[in-house]
Amino acid sequence: MKEIPGGVCAPKGFLAGGIRCGIKPSSQKKDLALIYSNSFCSAAAMFTENKVKAASVLVSQENIADGKLRAIIANSGNANACTGVDGLAAAKRMARLAADAFLIDPSEVAVASTGVIGVPLPINVIENNIDALKASLRDDEQGHADALEAIMTTDIRKKEIAVEIEIEGKTVRIGAMAKGSGMIHPNMAAAKHAAAKHATMLAFITTDASILPSALDTCLRRAVKKSFNRLTVDGDTSTNDMIVILANGEAGNQALTEESKDCKVFSKALDYICTTLTRMMARDGEGATKLVTVTVTGAESEETAEALAKSVASSSLVKAACFGADANWGRVLCAMGYAGVNFNPDMTDVVFTSSAGEINVCKNGQTVPFNEEKAKEILSQEEIEILIMLKEGKEKVSVWGCDLTYDYVKINGDYRS
Amino acid sequence: MKEIPGGVCAPKGFLAGGIRCGIKPSSQKKDLALIYSNSFCSAAAMFTENKVKAASVLVSQENIADGKLRAIIANSGNANACTGVDGLAAAKRMARLAADAFLIDPSEVAVASTGVIGVPLPINVIENNIDALKASLRDDEQGHADALEAIMTTDIRKKEIAVEIEIEGKTVRIGAMAKGSGMIHPNMAAAKHAAAKHATMLAFITTDASILPSALDTCLRRAVKKSFNRLTVDGDTSTNDMIVILANGEAGNQALTEESKDCKVFSKALDYICTTLTRMMARDGEGATKLVTVTVTGAESEETAEALAKSVASSSLVKAACFGADANWGRVLCAMGYAGVNFNPDMTDVVFTSSAGEINVCKNGQTVPFNEEKAKEILSQEEIEILIMLKEGKEKVSVWGCDLTYDYVKINGDYRS
Repeated sequence: MKEIPGGVCAPKGFLAGGIRCGIKPSSQKKDLALIYSNSFCSAAAMFTENKVKAASVLVSQENIADGKLRAIIANSGNANACTGVDGLAAAKRMARLAADAFLIDPSEVAVASTGVIGVPLPINVIENNIDALKASLRDDEQGHADALEAIMTTDIRKKEIAVEIEIEGKTVRIGAMAKGSGMIHPNMAAAKHAAAKHATMLAFITTDASILPSALDTCLRRAVKKSFNRLTVDGDTSTNDMIVILANGEAGNQALTEESKDCKVFSKALDYICTTLTRMMARDGEGATKLVTVTVTGAESEETAEALAKSVASSSLVKAACFGADANWGRVLCAMGYAGVNFNPDMTDVVFTSSAGEINVCKNGQTVPFNEEKAKEILSQEEIEILIMLKEGKEKVSVWGCDLTYDYVKINGDYRS
Repeated sequence: MKEIPGGVCAPKGFLAGGIRCGIKPSSQKKDLALIYSNSFCSAAAMFTENKVKAASVLVSQENIADGKLRAIIANSGNANACTGVDGLAAAKRMARLAADAFLIDPSEVAVASTGVIGVPLPINVIENNIDALKASLRDDEQGHADALEAIMTTDIRKKEIAVEIEIEGKTVRIGAMAKGSGMIHPNMAAAKHAAAKHATMLAFITTDASILPSALDTCLRRAVKKSFNRLTVDGDTSTNDMIVILANGEAGNQALTEESKDCKVFSKALDYICTTLTRMMARDGEGATKLVTVTVTGAESEETAEALAKSVASSSLVKAACFGADANWGRVLCAMGYAGVNFNPDMTDVVFTSSAGEINVCKNGQTVPFNEEKAKEILSQEEIEILIMLKEGKEKVSVWGCDLTYDYVKINGDYRS
């Protein structure tokens, strides 16, 4: 597997584009994006588990039901959530506008929105600009870059990646883009599956692999469980979270099924894509100065490890201590203690690690003498890890988050204006 | 019922005092407190449900088991949590030191601690100052004030109240003090009761009512469920939360039982005390500029109303919007949506209220035209309320919190030093 440029346009047969149509009146940034496959696709998607679902989520859930999609239309600047029947009609209209542009069925289009909640979506603005949007489509890196710009909100960094793998001697590519900086604590489930656990985050993935919809769905759920659903910026699970993957088969491999040996190769590459995007989102969390990875090892079960790691990564006190590069491990144990799962505090070790080294600050639930200056140096790096060892089993889970800073408060103290 | 001065020294037969013994080396503030009843007491207590419990919690849980206590010794500057067997021995020693000073049994003493986690408690410092602590006891408002100062950490405002009620023609008094500003999301349960739900917050209540331990326990649990356990500053449930009530019977009423008609009068007064202290804690949350009350009405069940209100009050995005006086009701609906309980977003109304008026910003899950300037004025007051109407039933619950500010980040980015 190697990383390649091109984002969602790296796989064969995919076009992308983005324009500014004025949904964000106060900004000169692009706000309307389109991704389109020249040929039919298998597709899979997962959506927020928030009980308050944006209209785009409801429409896309319906359209993905048959495992087939060919286009994604997305806007930033307006979440089209809490907008009632008019909002739902607007989301359906968005799908139809994109479909009409390519003479495909509206049910082949996923619709995504991100932005402020509760403001009617100016669908006429989108309608007036659909031709320009179609005209912006390109099959190269620029097309990808335009679409990506159009879905970004408070994001500062671009979240994009593409990889190349080999399946049956054929070159298979997977490309992706994502946005997400605040209201990030994804909890996404597959549209048709009852159970599954965990901002607005949007992620769009394309691949030229040939793969059955059911296998694609399995691979996506597996990847999301260990990536996006283990991400937290602020604990707020959005009304609009959505991840969509389109697979058009243009690589020419034999269609992958869940039983194919090569499906694992694809699945592993997808895991890598999702984990990379997840880390990028955590690092670019609103106001964040650092990426904080919380890893729990030696747990009895994956569920326990995940619950403990999430509780620590979500703790305002732990996050503020990370901002201050303060080795306050007592807050780590405290956050574990209210996670709602069993573990033995008296057997728990805590280590802080980063590129500047590692330091053991807690052994068997108690303090150990450590060099405060060294600890501060370790915690002052841009990427730090809180490593928690339970010694109760063999399960290991990492959760990604960020520090809590003045800028988070600033950004969110006055978001709408 | 009328409010009176005197705090925990308002009821007959109680003494209180506080001194500086040096547990907080960098501070000139008092750090060791004592409350003592001249006569035997019924007692009840509730403690943090955090799996990581401070040594003081473990010792006090044991000592309250028989429903009898006579003294409370408490220190600030050190939580004595995550301190292992030495910490437990230190907490037991604290109880014994207080007991020896009055020739009572150590099991008649509750021990409480608050401060940094994971640092050994300097018990020798407490031992060297126990005589001075006893000498500081007074039966007046100054005694109360000294003890209160000694339990405060990052608290800016004093949390204290006392009330007078009449039972069988006798004057009964209840007095209280509390501390708590950060690591506040109490989840306390009674020591011997399995179920019950929800900083370091410490609250000490005294009363000269005569009441059986079982009735006192029932009244306390009832009051805490509707007050402290509905408080959140930062979502972090502490390792040290504790509330203790001592009732010495010196008012001379016939002992209250759960069946007594007058028990309701007492219970109501205790509810008022606990709710008042809870509001004071929310208003004095670390860095807070305002008290935010979230009230859910028209819910099917109390549990649903409580879960929704807590989710909104805990949301970083809602809290940041309150700081910015931004009428971002979409964040309110979003936080309700991930509370994990069922409700109908399409029937939900949201109103912002304060002393500056009230404004309806969301009706049946959708925006309604409202005056942004008026909304800003309403949300700029020191006490604001987010009123959520579900129209699904008759249950109503209020939860208390505060805004998320630059100062919260500042205070917690460098707490230990």
